[in-house]
Amino acid sequence: MKDNIILLAHGAGGKKSGELIGSLFLRHFGNPVLNLLGDSAVLQSGGQKLAFTTDSFVVDPLFFPGGDIGKLAVCGTVNDLAAAGAGPLALSAAFILEEGLDFDTLERVAASMGEAASDVGVAIVAGDTKVVPRGSADRMFITTSGIGLLPEGREPPSPERAAPGDAVILSGTIGDHGMAVMACREGISFSSEIRSDCAPLHDLVAAVLEIAPSVHCLRDPTRGGLAATLNEIAVRSGACIEIDESSIPVNEDVRVACELLGIDPLHVANEGKMVAILPQEEAEVARAAMQRHPCGVQAAVIGRVESSPAGRVHLRTTMGSLRILDIPAGDLLPRIC
Amino acid sequence: MKDNIILLAHGAGGKKSGELIGSLFLRHFGNPVLNLLGDSAVLQSGGQKLAFTTDSFVVDPLFFPGGDIGKLAVCGTVNDLAAAGAGPLALSAAFILEEGLDFDTLERVAASMGEAASDVGVAIVAGDTKVVPRGSADRMFITTSGIGLLPEGREPPSPERAAPGDAVILSGTIGDHGMAVMACREGISFSSEIRSDCAPLHDLVAAVLEIAPSVHCLRDPTRGGLAATLNEIAVRSGACIEIDESSIPVNEDVRVACELLGIDPLHVANEGKMVAILPQEEAEVARAAMQRHPCGVQAAVIGRVESSPAGRVHLRTTMGSLRILDIPAGDLLPRIC
Repeated sequence: MKDNIILLAHGAGGKKSGELIGSLFLRHFGNPVLNLLGDSAVLQSGGQKLAFTTDSFVVDPLFFPGGDIGKLAVCGTVNDLAAAGAGPLALSAAFILEEGLDFDTLERVAASMGEAASDVGVAIVAGDTKVVPRGSADRMFITTSGIGLLPEGREPPSPERAAPGDAVILSGTIGDHGMAVMACREGISFSSEIRSDCAPLHDLVAAVLEIAPSVHCLRDPTRGGLAATLNEIAVRSGACIEIDESSIPVNEDVRVACELLGIDPLHVANEGKMVAILPQEEAEVARAAMQRHPCGVQAAVIGRVESSPAGRVHLRTTMGSLRILDIPAGDLLPRIC
Repeated sequence: MKDNIILLAHGAGGKKSGELIGSLFLRHFGNPVLNLLGDSAVLQSGGQKLAFTTDSFVVDPLFFPGGDIGKLAVCGTVNDLAAAGAGPLALSAAFILEEGLDFDTLERVAASMGEAASDVGVAIVAGDTKVVPRGSADRMFITTSGIGLLPEGREPPSPERAAPGDAVILSGTIGDHGMAVMACREGISFSSEIRSDCAPLHDLVAAVLEIAPSVHCLRDPTRGGLAATLNEIAVRSGACIEIDESSIPVNEDVRVACELLGIDPLHVANEGKMVAILPQEEAEVARAAMQRHPCGVQAAVIGRVESSPAGRVHLRTTMGSLRILDIPAGDLLPRIC
């Protein structure tokens, strides 16, 4: 790594994040489980397969249309477990608070977390609180971790398993979360309020797995957006993913906001969407299963896995041309989650 | 809670921490597992008992004699699992980095974490990195979580199980970690360098459990020091803990530093010590087992559990008088871990 300092882009989920993980963390921590870089690690313990995941949340502002840092933390962790095909068993929550933080703010966030966990039906069983002097942190950061349980005898979904011929399904519109936070932070208003899609997807995933238990890959496209997620799957599977731009649902206000700000919605974070890759013959039933869930009403088949060129994502544009869809290089949207 | 803002003391492990947990977190998150407030949560999953714990580390400075934030994060989590009688199964690590952080600093910390995990024989299997703009965090915060496995058929050690007649054993000297960080931060030098006791205690605990499998309670006295830990055990068990000041090992430099700064070593954080409470008749073999371990050479029986007054800790001073040992009220040592 040539840079000698940490940049915002190192935390953005794109190229620089990948470099930091590869050049530093894997070198010092590397082991067969971590090296898979799943949304969750999958561990064998006794007769059980456990999923284990962690994420820090530093979103600014703390409250935004459709959610807040607390709901985001719970949903983000539940969704990372879901992406491993695991049901949530228990969550932990660690708070780093800035001295002087308003007590009511913490109370609202804790209430929201409690409610989100209760809606999911999972308990927050462990926690920690640290307070740092004024100016040493910006109000509140939350780190949630989660343990999930994988059903016995089922191979966990994983990017490596995406195979030529598979269909690519997306559970709904993209860009809502990132644009909601951005609009809120920058005080931009549109014809209607853009709301974050922040939601737990364990039920939606369970519905898909029930109908298509052999789903090859599940992934929630958060930082770096759908583009980063698909590129990661392409690289890890050694296949090519080809998607049709016209089939990707985008809310009109999000589309307008992205155009205005010069941001590609494919690069914008989502917090309540899932990408599923599975055999073509199961695509329609899986999409229908998603559509029966409130978070998957706009689910769509957006593309397919091809054998080559390996590690690439191709986008068939609305104009009919084919272009390479790359991962975001910088960080257009810092502190989005 | 009367305060309307968060104070440093809310993160110090003393009275205010307890108030925050009781008045806010338990109200919104409360459930039978969390309510036990163990160093780790204990979960039943299938035929297995799992321990689950999380801690954020915000220590300042990042490097200090005897350790650094990375080693501290790994040892802290391993020790919280050990306090539940669990061997470490897997760790996660989530980083919050300040834009502009020196890459070499992160590299040194990651190397130290990797080494500490490798020494323990546990893998860091999941991780996350967020970067916040300059001024939104102070260099680096790390949150580690851990899953541990409890041996079958053994009742987990827990503060509630401390019972009148039990002996209280401490695995070694107190105050080393807090005073090492403090001296380093404030640029105070003593006749010799005070070194943090930061160390993983899973082996020491395993040795004790092998020889005294019915140990009633294990606890590592971190924030708030030995005083906070013993008070918590007294309150949760509804018993009285009586300790003899003269039997508590304190390194001479730590004693001098504490006197100089007007700090009671009983209130100072430790990161490589364990308190064990167990039936009197097993006290000597347990202490001997600790002493055979490099981290327990100075292990000592420091007191016993009495039936009353309930929830109190009594200290028999070196002068022979008996005084109530209370938990620290404020935060004399912010960002100590």
